[in-house]
Amino acid sequence: MKIGVVIPAAGQGKRMGTKKSKQFLMLEKKPIFIHTLLVFENYPAVSEIVVVTKKEEIAEVERLIRHYGIQKVTHVIEGGRERQDSVYEGLKYLHTDWVMVHDAVRPFVTPTALDRLLRIIPNGRAAILAVPVKDTIKQVDRDGNVEQSLDRSKLWAVQTPQLFERKLLWEAHQLAKEQNLAVTDDAMMVEQLGITVQVVLGEYNNIKLTTPEDLILAEAICKACKAR
Amino acid sequence: MKIGVVIPAAGQGKRMGTKKSKQFLMLEKKPIFIHTLLVFENYPAVSEIVVVTKKEEIAEVERLIRHYGIQKVTHVIEGGRERQDSVYEGLKYLHTDWVMVHDAVRPFVTPTALDRLLRIIPNGRAAILAVPVKDTIKQVDRDGNVEQSLDRSKLWAVQTPQLFERKLLWEAHQLAKEQNLAVTDDAMMVEQLGITVQVVLGEYNNIKLTTPEDLILAEAICKACKAR
Repeated sequence: MKIGVVIPAAGQGKRMGTKKSKQFLMLEKKPIFIHTLLVFENYPAVSEIVVVTKKEEIAEVERLIRHYGIQKVTHVIEGGRERQDSVYEGLKYLHTDWVMVHDAVRPFVTPTALDRLLRIIPNGRAAILAVPVKDTIKQVDRDGNVEQSLDRSKLWAVQTPQLFERKLLWEAHQLAKEQNLAVTDDAMMVEQLGITVQVVLGEYNNIKLTTPEDLILAEAICKACKAR
Repeated sequence: MKIGVVIPAAGQGKRMGTKKSKQFLMLEKKPIFIHTLLVFENYPAVSEIVVVTKKEEIAEVERLIRHYGIQKVTHVIEGGRERQDSVYEGLKYLHTDWVMVHDAVRPFVTPTALDRLLRIIPNGRAAILAVPVKDTIKQVDRDGNVEQSLDRSKLWAVQTPQLFERKLLWEAHQLAKEQNLAVTDDAMMVEQLGITVQVVLGEYNNIKLTTPEDLILAEAICKACKAR
């Protein structure tokens, strides 16, 4: 089984409050996105990786990929305006039957979690990593009043990677483009096609690094799991 | 304005994987719940605090409160089986017009956040601190399939303190007891009475320490805000 990976890395780092795109920030002496790429580089089922980034950062991304000896990245390409546009561009360069989409700034995904995700093949067509929500979540109206307390036992916080049959995800992206759908993840596009998306237990440490607080936690996670 | 505080501290620490109740774990040389109590001790509008804990831990809690010179705690009492039973017991010992309920293991609440919360007085009757949810949240069925992607823009993760007119919260607890309602926070009981609960912006650092990963983050937060 061969699996392709799209890594959208065209984020602005606005919430991080830095000039540099957040994926370039250093974590234990390596840029964050290099940690992320190394997970897939070392995961046997992955055969090709496409990194999608801002035009002005392509050269720097390519240089770092060479510097850290990463072999599986076949293309570093220019992204679109929104995350979903970047994923769409990335999909054009993959040839595998299956594809994973994974955030560049989510470096703590483990091979164990990837193993669990891939177990839906061949019976499922789409699956995501997620963890049960620990907080009480309320639905709030525009005036800042509680509309509804949600049933926490059914709520999961979505992570990446998200795994799809490549052709299914392509079809879903085209539908989303045609219909101008606002979506927050790739799974949501596939849901729009009426396809069942399976939820696979992820790990709480598989955080997305988007704020300065996240970076503090990331350093702590790094120190806790010395293996890295 | 005088405000009473109930601190439910009868948790088991099961998720923390320790023998000791989690509120006794040390953070920068003080037990977690002492950090929490000091916030309210030093907050002028708070006039009385009731701590609700397990019977076998009352003596230890009282000793630590004396050791750290905390003056506003009027009672340390035995809790009930569930968190809501403990809050109910605590409410019996308060005399103020307003009450805040706050988790013992949420030590990072700030005076600034409390100021914002109290601004609903006198127009509102109930308010909670909460932060916008950053993750994509999906509703998942019992078979582990996605039922629905929720509209993230309306979702808030609930924190404490939660602020209420004392008599209103008492009424809400009695209704919840009578009707055997399963609730995850005090606000939900008040919602059942048809009362509007206002949502006030909290702070992402105001985390609840329930897992070993949370403790790692807590140490990092302590180091980041040296003032503490």
